[in-house]
Amino acid sequence: MSPTSPTKPRKANDVEQWHLETEVAIVGFGGAGACAAIEAFDASAAVMIFEVASASGGSTALSSAEVYMGGNGGTDIQRACGYDDRTEDMFNYLMAAQGPLADEEKIRLYCEESRNHFDWLVEMGAKYKASEYKERAIMALTDDCLLFTGSEKAWPFSEIAKPCPRGHNLEVVGDNGGPMFMEFMTKRVEERDIDVEYNARALTLIVDDSEAVVGLVVRIDGEERNVRAHRGVILCAGGFIMNREMIENYAPEYAFAAIPVGNPGDDGSGIQIGQGAGGAVLHMNQCFLTLPFYPPASHTRGILVNAQGQRFINEDCYHSRLAERARQQLGDGVFLIIGEKNFAQPNMLGGEIVAAAETIEELAEDAGLPVENLSHTVNAYNESAARGEDPTFHKGAVWLEPIAPTYAAIDVTPGRHGNYCAFTLGGLDTLPTGEVLTMDKRIIPGLFAAGRTTCGVPRRAEGYASGLSVGDVTFFGRLAGRQASAAGRRNIRTD
Amino acid sequence: MSPTSPTKPRKANDVEQWHLETEVAIVGFGGAGACAAIEAFDASAAVMIFEVASASGGSTALSSAEVYMGGNGGTDIQRACGYDDRTEDMFNYLMAAQGPLADEEKIRLYCEESRNHFDWLVEMGAKYKASEYKERAIMALTDDCLLFTGSEKAWPFSEIAKPCPRGHNLEVVGDNGGPMFMEFMTKRVEERDIDVEYNARALTLIVDDSEAVVGLVVRIDGEERNVRAHRGVILCAGGFIMNREMIENYAPEYAFAAIPVGNPGDDGSGIQIGQGAGGAVLHMNQCFLTLPFYPPASHTRGILVNAQGQRFINEDCYHSRLAERARQQLGDGVFLIIGEKNFAQPNMLGGEIVAAAETIEELAEDAGLPVENLSHTVNAYNESAARGEDPTFHKGAVWLEPIAPTYAAIDVTPGRHGNYCAFTLGGLDTLPTGEVLTMDKRIIPGLFAAGRTTCGVPRRAEGYASGLSVGDVTFFGRLAGRQASAAGRRNIRTD
Repeated sequence: MSPTSPTKPRKANDVEQWHLETEVAIVGFGGAGACAAIEAFDASAAVMIFEVASASGGSTALSSAEVYMGGNGGTDIQRACGYDDRTEDMFNYLMAAQGPLADEEKIRLYCEESRNHFDWLVEMGAKYKASEYKERAIMALTDDCLLFTGSEKAWPFSEIAKPCPRGHNLEVVGDNGGPMFMEFMTKRVEERDIDVEYNARALTLIVDDSEAVVGLVVRIDGEERNVRAHRGVILCAGGFIMNREMIENYAPEYAFAAIPVGNPGDDGSGIQIGQGAGGAVLHMNQCFLTLPFYPPASHTRGILVNAQGQRFINEDCYHSRLAERARQQLGDGVFLIIGEKNFAQPNMLGGEIVAAAETIEELAEDAGLPVENLSHTVNAYNESAARGEDPTFHKGAVWLEPIAPTYAAIDVTPGRHGNYCAFTLGGLDTLPTGEVLTMDKRIIPGLFAAGRTTCGVPRRAEGYASGLSVGDVTFFGRLAGRQASAAGRRNIRTD
Repeated sequence: MSPTSPTKPRKANDVEQWHLETEVAIVGFGGAGACAAIEAFDASAAVMIFEVASASGGSTALSSAEVYMGGNGGTDIQRACGYDDRTEDMFNYLMAAQGPLADEEKIRLYCEESRNHFDWLVEMGAKYKASEYKERAIMALTDDCLLFTGSEKAWPFSEIAKPCPRGHNLEVVGDNGGPMFMEFMTKRVEERDIDVEYNARALTLIVDDSEAVVGLVVRIDGEERNVRAHRGVILCAGGFIMNREMIENYAPEYAFAAIPVGNPGDDGSGIQIGQGAGGAVLHMNQCFLTLPFYPPASHTRGILVNAQGQRFINEDCYHSRLAERARQQLGDGVFLIIGEKNFAQPNMLGGEIVAAAETIEELAEDAGLPVENLSHTVNAYNESAARGEDPTFHKGAVWLEPIAPTYAAIDVTPGRHGNYCAFTLGGLDTLPTGEVLTMDKRIIPGLFAAGRTTCGVPRRAEGYASGLSVGDVTFFGRLAGRQASAAGRRNIRTD
């Protein structure tokens, strides 16, 4: 066995033959790779894409392709729906949502420029209807566009920034945004003179004597091919949710989540290749997490309690925030306590009804919860809810009504409930331009990354909002494409 | 500016002169480095230590030098005090304490071998008195040896493994264990033919064509010196709590802690040097955290409540677990609610009394806590405590008594209270042997690490116990020394 790691870069001096030559080589043809390719090409670079699968798509095609966009007075859609979205509100919301993990520079740029980026997506072929989806939902399953997809209206965020819906859903019925999005983006790539190699697995980078990245080794049809990339390589190869060993090693707190959200290419190879070339990794322990116990939105009128029979969150938050807080509870048990009136089947990913009773005492006993605590919790909640208040967790007044019998307890315990979903949020440490940084914050010349191969705007489950990942991968994919296209320009004079 | 990161290894081919030559080069002369050096030397290797400070000590000298040891029927001290410590109890406790982050292989070996390691420490000069310190404390300030330093007796751990005290305190009065420990360990190094270079800053590694580590560049008296290390380099250079930029980047959730526990050498340079050579890093987001609001132990008879006026933990846990859970609470405020009878000054790092009152209602109002919730919390606690029970969080019966007026609220809110202490637990990914791994789990030949430069047995605040870090650094320091001393042995035949 060679002592050299397979992700360790090879030396340009050792390359006997350059099989392919381009200016910008892109690894991965999902949302990030497509945007990087188009932008690099439009900035006059020669571009090749290497995709391990036999078609474009990546995990963007598996998503709903909602994008979280706004600021600058609002996108066309926001304004048409009557929302005048201020950049500062968007910035303050995202900073609070990401908390100590926030990358202020990326968030600032994203908030200032996402409205323009939205227009660019429309130019690329994205169609959005000037309509709002007003139900509390995981995603709009109609062809309506604008919806609240984060915790903007929920405490404490509602006190930090003026709430505004920023989730933009494509004009398509059902959860079909992702395939549609990647279909028109693939067309935009194909219309350009961009070479795409499918079934091409990136193996490692090629560096020159100064450690600058000058190319890439890929395997195509079982043969290793050396790709000279005169201006740079952009890693857009997704995250690592499908790599069980990496999850157990780097993000073990999310290993319990039974449903990985991703495609087989989310194997961490992009991150490993970048790290092998000296790239630092950031927040590899963080994942998006969810148990969407709504819709129906009426479930928000229930309360979530832990094994102590105490509430621990305002239930009108975004589902990823709820799931993350559920994960952190001590003891064995997290339940949705709800009255018959507000319960409805089917809920999206469900949760089993483990007890139903006419009194809270009986419900607690049947569900194995401490009777006295649960009684106090429900009684105190009901008393204040009747007044339209939630002094404990500040759930929005619209969701407040006393919980009435028949009572039900739905088991949503992390690890016991099988429908928790996760994908990774950690990855290479990059500048907003996509330039990959070493651990001592130096730029690695010629190396760029975007999408879930990097640690981007969304950095923790409790601050996630639907549309933040596709928003981030397309936005920063473009920036990486632009930066790479201009990299390494030089005139040579020998006079 | 060179595009090459300063921590990027240099090439042996580019080395014009080897200024120093040894078999095992060790970076750092704290607890890990001392043990690695002694063990490598005793296994017949030539050894040099390079220490950036002007004296030995590292952060071990700043600690109390308690070691967390046991298993195999107990150390001599455990047995003399009547404890028959089973390896499985120690293993099950540590696995539960580290939770999903646990490194089973390291923990297993540590539990099986720590009794022998304890004997070795005694052989090196450590003196322990066969006596138990029975008070609940952060450390023994007497010369007594054995004490409970984790959450062994607290729920849920008391149900998982038979509790046993495993903190071993040196026979010295006051918090003077660290200097004493490093004094005799330094003598043991000096008695051997081990070269020590002080004021020597490690800059980067030197690798051969196969990327194996064959040496080290150090700066001594302003001059760069190339050190040939025929068998390997061991990085024992501490953690990164003193590197503010790294804390904000990698462990931002602990950036609020005002008191870094470490020496100026804990600047992350060891981790950076290892990562520059391809080493993977693990759990860089994790820190030890504490606000020791006890001693006096009687403070454990109070309850900790969050901004919702709810309890969130059994207060008889180890202080780092309490602090970590306090950090995770929503809203702005964590308070110790305690009756006059059990309050005593001075407590170690304190907490300000923000309210004192004859009724809970008045106390809640003065402290800005929700009156109804706090009343319920205290009343329910008092009722069950009078029966010797804590059905909510299972605090041990010995600590249970109703909280009686005059009531006090002590503000221990993370970020507001200035006395939270932290040090880093993340670092290089290593095998128990100290061999440093790449992200794809390959061993980097010639590179070893130990101590807080690595991610060791203690991996998260909520699973920490006093003595785990010095226990880990000395135990795995020795293993790294042993492994490095035997590395790269080979016979050369040209016949």
